[in-house]
Amino acid sequence: MMDDAMENGMGSYQERPRTFPSMRSKSHYPLIFRMLLGINARVLVVLLLLIFGAVFYVGASTSPIIIFVFSICIISFFFSVYLTKWVLAKDEGPPEMVQISEAIRDGAEGFFRTQYGTISKMAMVLALVILGIYLFRSTTPQQESSGLSRSTSAYITVAAFLLGALCSGIAGYIGMWVSVRANVRVSSAARRSAREALQIAVRAGGFSAIVVVGMAVIGVAVLYATFYVFLEVDSPGSMKVTDLPLLLVGYGFGASFVALFAQLGGGIYTKAADVGADLVGKVEQGIPEDDPRNPAVIADLVGDNVGDCAARGADLFESIAAEIISAMILGGTMAQRCKIEDPSGFILFPLVVHSFDLVVSSIGILSIRGTRDPGLIVPIEDPMAILQKGYSVTIVLAVLTFGVSTRWLLYTEQAPSAWLNFALCGLVGIMTAYAFVWITKYYTDYKHEPVRVLALSSATGHGTNIIAGVSLGLESTALPVLVISIAIISAFWLGHTSGLVDETGSPTGGLFGTAVATMGMLSTAAYVLTMDMFGPIADNAGGIVEMSQQPESVREITDVLDAVGNTTKATTKGFAIGSAALASFLLFSAYMDEVASFAHVSFKEVDIAIPEVFIGGLLGSMLIFLFSAWACSAVGRTAQEVVNEVRRQFVERPGIMEYQEKPDYGRCVAIVASASLREMIKPGALAIISPVVIGFIFRLLGHYTGRPLLGAKVVASMLMFATVAGILMALFLNTAGGAWDNAKKYIETGALGGKGSDCHKAAVTGDTVGDPFKDTAGPSLHVLIKMLATITLVMAPVFL
Amino acid sequence: MMDDAMENGMGSYQERPRTFPSMRSKSHYPLIFRMLLGINARVLVVLLLLIFGAVFYVGASTSPIIIFVFSICIISFFFSVYLTKWVLAKDEGPPEMVQISEAIRDGAEGFFRTQYGTISKMAMVLALVILGIYLFRSTTPQQESSGLSRSTSAYITVAAFLLGALCSGIAGYIGMWVSVRANVRVSSAARRSAREALQIAVRAGGFSAIVVVGMAVIGVAVLYATFYVFLEVDSPGSMKVTDLPLLLVGYGFGASFVALFAQLGGGIYTKAADVGADLVGKVEQGIPEDDPRNPAVIADLVGDNVGDCAARGADLFESIAAEIISAMILGGTMAQRCKIEDPSGFILFPLVVHSFDLVVSSIGILSIRGTRDPGLIVPIEDPMAILQKGYSVTIVLAVLTFGVSTRWLLYTEQAPSAWLNFALCGLVGIMTAYAFVWITKYYTDYKHEPVRVLALSSATGHGTNIIAGVSLGLESTALPVLVISIAIISAFWLGHTSGLVDETGSPTGGLFGTAVATMGMLSTAAYVLTMDMFGPIADNAGGIVEMSQQPESVREITDVLDAVGNTTKATTKGFAIGSAALASFLLFSAYMDEVASFAHVSFKEVDIAIPEVFIGGLLGSMLIFLFSAWACSAVGRTAQEVVNEVRRQFVERPGIMEYQEKPDYGRCVAIVASASLREMIKPGALAIISPVVIGFIFRLLGHYTGRPLLGAKVVASMLMFATVAGILMALFLNTAGGAWDNAKKYIETGALGGKGSDCHKAAVTGDTVGDPFKDTAGPSLHVLIKMLATITLVMAPVFL
Repeated sequence: MMDDAMENGMGSYQERPRTFPSMRSKSHYPLIFRMLLGINARVLVVLLLLIFGAVFYVGASTSPIIIFVFSICIISFFFSVYLTKWVLAKDEGPPEMVQISEAIRDGAEGFFRTQYGTISKMAMVLALVILGIYLFRSTTPQQESSGLSRSTSAYITVAAFLLGALCSGIAGYIGMWVSVRANVRVSSAARRSAREALQIAVRAGGFSAIVVVGMAVIGVAVLYATFYVFLEVDSPGSMKVTDLPLLLVGYGFGASFVALFAQLGGGIYTKAADVGADLVGKVEQGIPEDDPRNPAVIADLVGDNVGDCAARGADLFESIAAEIISAMILGGTMAQRCKIEDPSGFILFPLVVHSFDLVVSSIGILSIRGTRDPGLIVPIEDPMAILQKGYSVTIVLAVLTFGVSTRWLLYTEQAPSAWLNFALCGLVGIMTAYAFVWITKYYTDYKHEPVRVLALSSATGHGTNIIAGVSLGLESTALPVLVISIAIISAFWLGHTSGLVDETGSPTGGLFGTAVATMGMLSTAAYVLTMDMFGPIADNAGGIVEMSQQPESVREITDVLDAVGNTTKATTKGFAIGSAALASFLLFSAYMDEVASFAHVSFKEVDIAIPEVFIGGLLGSMLIFLFSAWACSAVGRTAQEVVNEVRRQFVERPGIMEYQEKPDYGRCVAIVASASLREMIKPGALAIISPVVIGFIFRLLGHYTGRPLLGAKVVASMLMFATVAGILMALFLNTAGGAWDNAKKYIETGALGGKGSDCHKAAVTGDTVGDPFKDTAGPSLHVLIKMLATITLVMAPVFL
Repeated sequence: MMDDAMENGMGSYQERPRTFPSMRSKSHYPLIFRMLLGINARVLVVLLLLIFGAVFYVGASTSPIIIFVFSICIISFFFSVYLTKWVLAKDEGPPEMVQISEAIRDGAEGFFRTQYGTISKMAMVLALVILGIYLFRSTTPQQESSGLSRSTSAYITVAAFLLGALCSGIAGYIGMWVSVRANVRVSSAARRSAREALQIAVRAGGFSAIVVVGMAVIGVAVLYATFYVFLEVDSPGSMKVTDLPLLLVGYGFGASFVALFAQLGGGIYTKAADVGADLVGKVEQGIPEDDPRNPAVIADLVGDNVGDCAARGADLFESIAAEIISAMILGGTMAQRCKIEDPSGFILFPLVVHSFDLVVSSIGILSIRGTRDPGLIVPIEDPMAILQKGYSVTIVLAVLTFGVSTRWLLYTEQAPSAWLNFALCGLVGIMTAYAFVWITKYYTDYKHEPVRVLALSSATGHGTNIIAGVSLGLESTALPVLVISIAIISAFWLGHTSGLVDETGSPTGGLFGTAVATMGMLSTAAYVLTMDMFGPIADNAGGIVEMSQQPESVREITDVLDAVGNTTKATTKGFAIGSAALASFLLFSAYMDEVASFAHVSFKEVDIAIPEVFIGGLLGSMLIFLFSAWACSAVGRTAQEVVNEVRRQFVERPGIMEYQEKPDYGRCVAIVASASLREMIKPGALAIISPVVIGFIFRLLGHYTGRPLLGAKVVASMLMFATVAGILMALFLNTAGGAWDNAKKYIETGALGGKGSDCHKAAVTGDTVGDPFKDTAGPSLHVLIKMLATITLVMAPVFL
């Protein structure tokens, strides 16, 4: 809306941009949201209560633990409603801010609609494919014994897949919905108080974090309870409760499917706009970031919302869902092997951990309070310190509640001290999260050696800066790998020695120990996600302040918040990749169990000394390289289009640089939106199709050479090698990108010649290269790793 | 010598540079070379004949095949002497060329002496460590039954290691020795005829290629024959001939140990000088490549010799040695399993293949003839076409001789058609080599789409150029991986269905089929190495022409040769990494056999579903990333030193740019030499120490948790994952680097604005980044992969 106004100088607001049809009207708003927003709050509450009542009824027939989980989730939803109301009650500032904010909102929501339209069509196609596969697959002995028919199993899987996809989409939408509303309120508050601005950004981030985590938990819980009641689990002749979690896998796959495309599309959008804007604006024209004269600036600000907020929401939703489901599967398997009388504690443990996560993170978010400093504009405290304090509160509480959960749910008379071992596993996980955050900070914060060395290397030119950044990124993979190795081994051994033994007396809790460590790592996920969401909101607020040409003092406040946001974003990525590594390792075990139960034979080993299995690994690693290549080149290509468009505008409208003419923001938005939709298909399709095709080819090869499990083994090896390569590649891309960004920021503080020097130009080149690394390819790899793990689980019938 | 002269303008030549002591005098020349060069040719021949007589005597007691191999090697050595004499008989051109050439030669030989001094000290230490380990290790049942004592086994391994290291060192020295002599002769010939210049460069390259391959073959053959006679193999109560090849592993390890440090040191040297020279010369001052005003130009030219010639010689020497030994081990194992009466054919097959390689490659080299065009200066034919024609001749002959070798050595009455299957395996290998060369050309030659797109991306700035190059490199891993996957599987199945069966009747020739395919791939190694050596010689010749300020027409000739050299260098790298992948896969099987025979238990599988084994893989992949990081950052750091020095000289001696003052070349040479010696240690040590340490730690862990083979399994997994990650990373680094280089060259032909445009500057940045990728980290990874495979074999006792 606003861009056209700007384009025509003081033109009328009735004219809509010609170039971006999806921005034309608000009438395309999803019906459900318009309805929800239109309903009277009291009616809404009554409606919600009715729905919750029904859910409670089902839950109550299942297990008291489910009731506990439901209650916490509902309380959290009310809390999140309180946070939104609090944020929305803040003022939107002067009209020029509102105008800019509306342009961003229109751009973001327009892209979101188109993107999710495409994604939902692909999801429907995939759902049909899954249905077809499951209708023709053979049944497992468990299914036969429990009377679960082939078609029931097919419908259950497809329903879970669609629910996962829907929830993932909602998670993404909510992340974006709040950020496009909070950004302008943060800018406005920054005119009054740094602390208030911080608090708004944190509470807005907290809202979506709570909703995302809550939805992952309640989605799994509702599915679990529904299947439990619907399939008459644990009644004679029916399915056993320990087999139930395997039916939830479709939910995880749906979530990761949507998250992958959300991350790819959003990541390409945000970075193509950013790179394009920077290359012409900063490097060629020498105008500052987010300067209103830059025609790509609105596209850049829209990108922060669709790329960082929407995509990271979907990413963490999917992480938590995948991790909950894999831990439930492993808990069920172990409980069955150890003949534990009431296995529901082991199965439902992850849901309880994340319910506590909601509680402790809410407390952490609330602990960040506004002080009464209405007259002070200068920040009186380092915002990072405030966020860290909140994180410390959350972590301490998480350790306590984790101990409570293990004692409550994992105590069994068979092994009285097992819960203590598992509590220690949780501690291992929490410490791993801490270590990851610390290592990421060490490599990406300019307070430390690596980024300073990188900044110094810019002094000798573009080339040495890139070489140093690539080396830094490659080197930064070492410590996280060591940490994750130690974490896996120690958690495995804590679980192994927990005293839980199977019928033959051999210890069997090892893998579950790793699962508990993963839960420990994710036990503060909501707070971490809050800190992550904080970043793009602050970034956008800074953009709005700059574009509406507020005084320098206001910009200073948002700059400080933005810098803190950069650090929290980087650390969340470390956190996300660590948990992805662990979750993928768990899903791999679940996959082997699943294959074994389908194939009616034991499937315990993946022997890479067999040439075909080794080849599977080679192909899996290659998949990661090819996927990263396509993700990066998509950004590069789109950015080139933006560069050419921005250059064209500067040439054709020479008045832009003197503020005489308004640039055509809409065209850049349109170019980026259509290009990123087009470009997200190729890498996404590669990720989904290749494991299925390779598994099928080797299944045929195995069939003709008399090795029935070959396809499944090749896929397993592919998955493991892809996980390893994916972790390393993601660490490399994220860290290199973050370090380049901060090396540039370090120089902008005045070091080594400061802004405008040759050194700074070289650093901007590095930052530009890092953009697709850290915000497109890197985070897409987190999702890819988990999606590969869930797709192999769901598609297992194809390989057998 | 010359640099000081230049430094003082018209200063006397008696003064030696103060800054680079190792260049001070020629008296440090290795004694052995001075003696050899000083001896009358006839005396030398008589001496050689005597030595060969002794070797023949030993060979004759072993097998007629060994006699055949010896004869071919000796004929090849005479042929190589002919080639040197032919090259050295050419004139060195005017005194200004000779001066420059001498400066290059002094720099190269000075660095070589210091570098190999360091390497030989490290090799001695490692030899002592190996001796210690072997003196305390347990003996295998085979050893016990053959009466091979612990100390004999220790001395044999150490002797083989030292011989391998020595030969590898000589291979490197010879590569450099001829190139520093041929370069000036090529420059001189370029003044007369393009064809003659080409011929000199090819024959000089051919000389070192023949020597390198011949030495690898005769080294293994001599060791084999000596051990055969010395250990009284095949006599009752002694070792069986099928176990003999395992004793040769030390030779491969010695070769790869030296090759690794040669490649690291040389690669850092050449690229630090190149990057440093380009960043200030081309980008900042706008002077052309190899301009005499650039103070780093001599260091750059020295680098071509120590980095490309010496290191690639050691690299391919080591490839061939490792591949011969692993194929011999597999041949022996299979012959034993199939109870083949005379296993010597299977064991000695690789030696025969490489003997034929020497013959067919010699014919290929000779097929490139000088035409009688003394008056013509403009090249009348594309040099690439001439080289390709020679390659075609070589390949056709290689296919024929390969067929002859299989029929001769692999025919057995037990499976009469097996030899035909193995001949097809060889064809698979030759086709794989062709496919690799084609794919590399597609991605790095500017006649094709990818490099053109890359060049176009430079038009939008440094950032998009780097993003596009990284994407191109990552994408280029896909096709080679598919090719190698198909090659491994088809060769395995050809071998598997060859009809060779073990006692229980199950087919057993699969792995040997893969080994034969590897040999097929390497069956034209000498010719490929010739084409590779051609590159740096042409490059140096171009440098000498530029520095001695010859007419433009001469420079044009060397430019064409240089461009062709770039393509051949890139394709050789594709070839080297393909063969490294296959060789590593073979050595992995040999490792499992070795462990099984030590541990007295079967060791048939590496199950990555075991957490520790998975972690081993994670650590192995990480090793590749860390190694690449350190190799790249070494170049970056050293290049920064060079940049600062060159800038300093330009500031302190403003007359340089106007040809009024001579730059101080010696200081740059000294800086680069000492820095690369220092920087090669860290990545090299990482590669050697980490597998041993990790194997030992997990051995201890396995010991305390009751899993005796844990250490060996973790190392196996580490090796496999490292191989996979190493192949992908090397492909990425080599291709990206080559593509950047040629994108720059494409722009320099006048496309997209040509030299001096902003687009060209961005392309130069890309080229700079690509330098350490393609000439330091990439080729070091080829060597690293094989070194890991041999070190695990030699160090196996540590893990058990």
